[in-house]
Amino acid sequence: MVFQDQEVHVRTAFIGLGAMGYPMAGHLAKKYETLVWNRTFAKAEAHAKEFGSRAVELPEVASADILLTCLPTSLEVDELAQKLLPYLRPGMLWIDHTSGEPELAKKTAHMLKEKGVSYLDACLSGGVAGALQARATVMAGGSLQDFARAKPVMEAYATKIVHVGPLGSGHAVKAVNNALLAVNLWALSEGMVALVKQGVDAGLALEVINASSGRSNVSENLFGQRVISRQFPNTFALGLLAKDTGICVKVLEAAGTPAPLLRQVREFFEIAKREVGAAEVDHTAVARLLERWSGVEIK
Amino acid sequence: MVFQDQEVHVRTAFIGLGAMGYPMAGHLAKKYETLVWNRTFAKAEAHAKEFGSRAVELPEVASADILLTCLPTSLEVDELAQKLLPYLRPGMLWIDHTSGEPELAKKTAHMLKEKGVSYLDACLSGGVAGALQARATVMAGGSLQDFARAKPVMEAYATKIVHVGPLGSGHAVKAVNNALLAVNLWALSEGMVALVKQGVDAGLALEVINASSGRSNVSENLFGQRVISRQFPNTFALGLLAKDTGICVKVLEAAGTPAPLLRQVREFFEIAKREVGAAEVDHTAVARLLERWSGVEIK
Amino acid sequence: MVFQDQEVHVRTAFIGLGAMGYPMAGHLAKKYETLVWNRTFAKAEAHAKEFGSRAVELPEVASADILLTCLPTSLEVDELAQKLLPYLRPGMLWIDHTSGEPELAKKTAHMLKEKGVSYLDACLSGGVAGALQARATVMAGGSLQDFARAKPVMEAYATKIVHVGPLGSGHAVKAVNNALLAVNLWALSEGMVALVKQGVDAGLALEVINASSGRSNVSENLFGQRVISRQFPNTFALGLLAKDTGICVKVLEAAGTPAPLLRQVREFFEIAKREVGAAEVDHTAVARLLERWSGVEIK
Amino acid sequence: MVFQDQEVHVRTAFIGLGAMGYPMAGHLAKKYETLVWNRTFAKAEAHAKEFGSRAVELPEVASADILLTCLPTSLEVDELAQKLLPYLRPGMLWIDHTSGEPELAKKTAHMLKEKGVSYLDACLSGGVAGALQARATVMAGGSLQDFARAKPVMEAYATKIVHVGPLGSGHAVKAVNNALLAVNLWALSEGMVALVKQGVDAGLALEVINASSGRSNVSENLFGQRVISRQFPNTFALGLLAKDTGICVKVLEAAGTPAPLLRQVREFFEIAKREVGAAEVDHTAVARLLERWSGVEIK
Repeated sequence: MVFQDQEVHVRTAFIGLGAMGYPMAGHLAKKYETLVWNRTFAKAEAHAKEFGSRAVELPEVASADILLTCLPTSLEVDELAQKLLPYLRPGMLWIDHTSGEPELAKKTAHMLKEKGVSYLDACLSGGVAGALQARATVMAGGSLQDFARAKPVMEAYATKIVHVGPLGSGHAVKAVNNALLAVNLWALSEGMVALVKQGVDAGLALEVINASSGRSNVSENLFGQRVISRQFPNTFALGLLAKDTGICVKVLEAAGTPAPLLRQVREFFEIAKREVGAAEVDHTAVARLLERWSGVEIK
Repeated sequence: MVFQDQEVHVRTAFIGLGAMGYPMAGHLAKKYETLVWNRTFAKAEAHAKEFGSRAVELPEVASADILLTCLPTSLEVDELAQKLLPYLRPGMLWIDHTSGEPELAKKTAHMLKEKGVSYLDACLSGGVAGALQARATVMAGGSLQDFARAKPVMEAYATKIVHVGPLGSGHAVKAVNNALLAVNLWALSEGMVALVKQGVDAGLALEVINASSGRSNVSENLFGQRVISRQFPNTFALGLLAKDTGICVKVLEAAGTPAPLLRQVREFFEIAKREVGAAEVDHTAVARLLERWSGVEIK
Repeated sequence: MVFQDQEVHVRTAFIGLGAMGYPMAGHLAKKYETLVWNRTFAKAEAHAKEFGSRAVELPEVASADILLTCLPTSLEVDELAQKLLPYLRPGMLWIDHTSGEPELAKKTAHMLKEKGVSYLDACLSGGVAGALQARATVMAGGSLQDFARAKPVMEAYATKIVHVGPLGSGHAVKAVNNALLAVNLWALSEGMVALVKQGVDAGLALEVINASSGRSNVSENLFGQRVISRQFPNTFALGLLAKDTGICVKVLEAAGTPAPLLRQVREFFEIAKREVGAAEVDHTAVARLLERWSGVEIK
Repeated sequence: MVFQDQEVHVRTAFIGLGAMGYPMAGHLAKKYETLVWNRTFAKAEAHAKEFGSRAVELPEVASADILLTCLPTSLEVDELAQKLLPYLRPGMLWIDHTSGEPELAKKTAHMLKEKGVSYLDACLSGGVAGALQARATVMAGGSLQDFARAKPVMEAYATKIVHVGPLGSGHAVKAVNNALLAVNLWALSEGMVALVKQGVDAGLALEVINASSGRSNVSENLFGQRVISRQFPNTFALGLLAKDTGICVKVLEAAGTPAPLLRQVREFFEIAKREVGAAEVDHTAVARLLERWSGVEIK
């Protein structure tokens, strides 16, 4: 495979070929030499076959110039960093696309730095669709110099790439964003059950809210398609969003500021996780808990 | 003035020539014979001069086929209805554009009905800009028959006109919408002060949130222009939004459903009203209270 | 039956012979001529037999000088007042021991006043045990003059009788008291499940809390006997306490003050009512909901 | 000085001669040989003069069999442990009376254990009065064996000494207790301002609440004496109670249970700390914030 001139010397490695990582590493492999590794190794082999990447043993990822990770939580990232530590070489850059925790990421980054390895926490938004279409959004924390080095690589799969602040900022902004998603979802569900209970048509109420000041991504893109449709397709598990609201609480703790609403919504999602399921159901299923408490269906 | 054929026989009257009502009655006067009345009567006279409406004594508004009101609260509407009651004639239709309370509106409607007068609660959204451009959104509650009669008249100033349910539904949907606005504003402010306190750039954080799942009308159209810009232009008073969250609480009470988040945000707005002012400041000034508690400015 | 000299001329009537009313009317009958009426009339007849009161048809209660009620809610009191209105005579005093609502009580009192009948809202505490032992506490709202007239009568079954303020104050103080009970119960349950989950012995933790600043009637007299004992005897239904927290919310609304904690606890009790039952379980069963959410038993 | 026979061989050392520690170390010195050290060394010298203890240089405290600490937070304890580490000897027992954090205490204990030193987190209640009168309450976490060894020593100043669970349990129970104190104080303040605003007499309302189910240590022993009296004597700083509610939040996090009320009250105390002062005012001053929001004084 021949790579574009200016980028020919960059070797990348991508670890974590999940729903997001698999297509992103695919886009990467079209522009850069790309090594891939995955706990379930068959996925790495399939990826190599499909995209021309190269499936390698874990230590070999350390031969890359830029290492990219997209794992479930910061714990897995930190464990991986400890495992790879003996193999890592000074000058490497680690771009972490995990939806993780600022404080743990800082600890990992500190450990890597002692080995001369740079680290960026570079959270994603745009969902699986964005990853598939190479239109992801990246919010990155770390040094401006590392960000400048990482940006062209991330352009392989992202269209909006923003440096939001120092180390940990990417994780922090992502956690706040997802807590806002949780707030909007919960509050809209509360309002809709109350309206429906009094004879309002849910679809029409949503239509006018979407033309009014209370509208949000939740009201415009989730509520009609998932709740009022009664489909609740499982694309983003309630348990994961509950986890993210918990990371947001850690961000609030680190800031040391009162934030009663964001902290409260996390309680409600933890309750919902226990009452309507965690991994098994889509995050929009919190509406079902409010329906249960009110005795109506939002429709 | 010559009116369009099919509408030539409809006489309207508009009461309440405030920031919203004044331009709406103006659009109305271009299509219908329109009487106007206002507590500060000079406003009615100015309106007549500007738009060719006719400023009349209060009792004379009862000569209209369709009466429209846009007043501060349902209390003023009910008082007006009591005052006009002796003059009202069976067959009249009262379209109330006030951001009011479902229960009080039902009481007013009941009183009017005994006089043979129909009533629609027909809340507006789109703000002053929407009213000026004849592009308001209307969410109406009442009978379908009354709605069908009212719709062509409202088309003089509204582009999206939706019948959302029975009597009181218009007020209810509007109250829920505004409570969602309040929730989004408070939650985003909480998140932003925490991020800024940890070194995140507010403008860039907002930019990525607006490309992500946590975005809302507040993040897209209010927060950058009013808070991060440090302008806080007073276009929608904090005290009015606090009042609307209180109406939403009444809607929740009528529904008899648990709704901890919407009820809680009303508490916060009542606190903010006392701490940063009510009539004097824009609703976005709640961000200032959270800034005060965190010791940073969102910028 | 011969009554004490100074009280011989007072005829009383007691309506509502429930768990509280039955023994209270019994104590009353020992000191005063007492008419009794109850919806289930057999109860009135049993009372007459047991205590020497006289079971009468409803209209006849209006022959009493002082009328006492102890009913489920203010709604029943108001309906009764409407039904009795034609029979009531000027100069009568109505002592209402119902745990009711200030605003509705004011409406009832207003209606009675037009007939020349005085009204006191005179809530009880001390529970069934206090009523049985003639050791109830009374918190009364109304005029000082009416209170002075009522006090000797209430001394038949109450040892602490306090005039707390104007009409409605008795209901208001009772509602706040019960909301505090709800707060203490919920908060202690939250704390105990967290402690138990980490290996703390519930009984010992309670023992030291009861020797410390966080203790309350709930920790001293309810939690050990009902929750840690796993008995949950149904003496005060969860649904009734949920109702009282709702009355407290009305008191807060009438006051127009922010009160986020008391309003929030009402939400939790409404949720608990739906999740663990209302009439069927004791109020201490809210601890079971928190146990369900945490996966441990408090013991 | 001659010590009681059975205890003659135990040498103790007490570090942290604050409002609590000073009198406790005094009681200790009456029964045991007691070394004392304090950052402000003059206090140690004064103690030695007053109670016959011996003021020593810091390293010399390590010559004691049992070391007792009563410091502001767990941070100071951990720092002290690090500083003393080279001097500590296997077999020593460290009794920590600080109101501290379970997780940090576990870390300190782990570090001490490697040196063969045992550790108990042994929180106090009863306040300065309890310490002065040798009537403190102790809630201790750690091994039963260490507890058995510590108990006779603590009997010098405590009358109720309870082993509540494993390491960290003492801190955890204390934090929950103080969060309950905070809840009771905030909720009672909310209720009282609402009652007073409607004409209820605060003192009389408190009197009946204290005879009813909503009573607590706050209503019985703090509210009348400190709030209604308008005295607000500064005996327990608002900032310290806010800190304790924060430790309680850490306990809740470690337990992984939803606890919306205890987490919410911490937000309110953090807000109050910012609005009415932290170190400067007594914790009962939170009532003043609620008074400010309602426009009345509780009296």
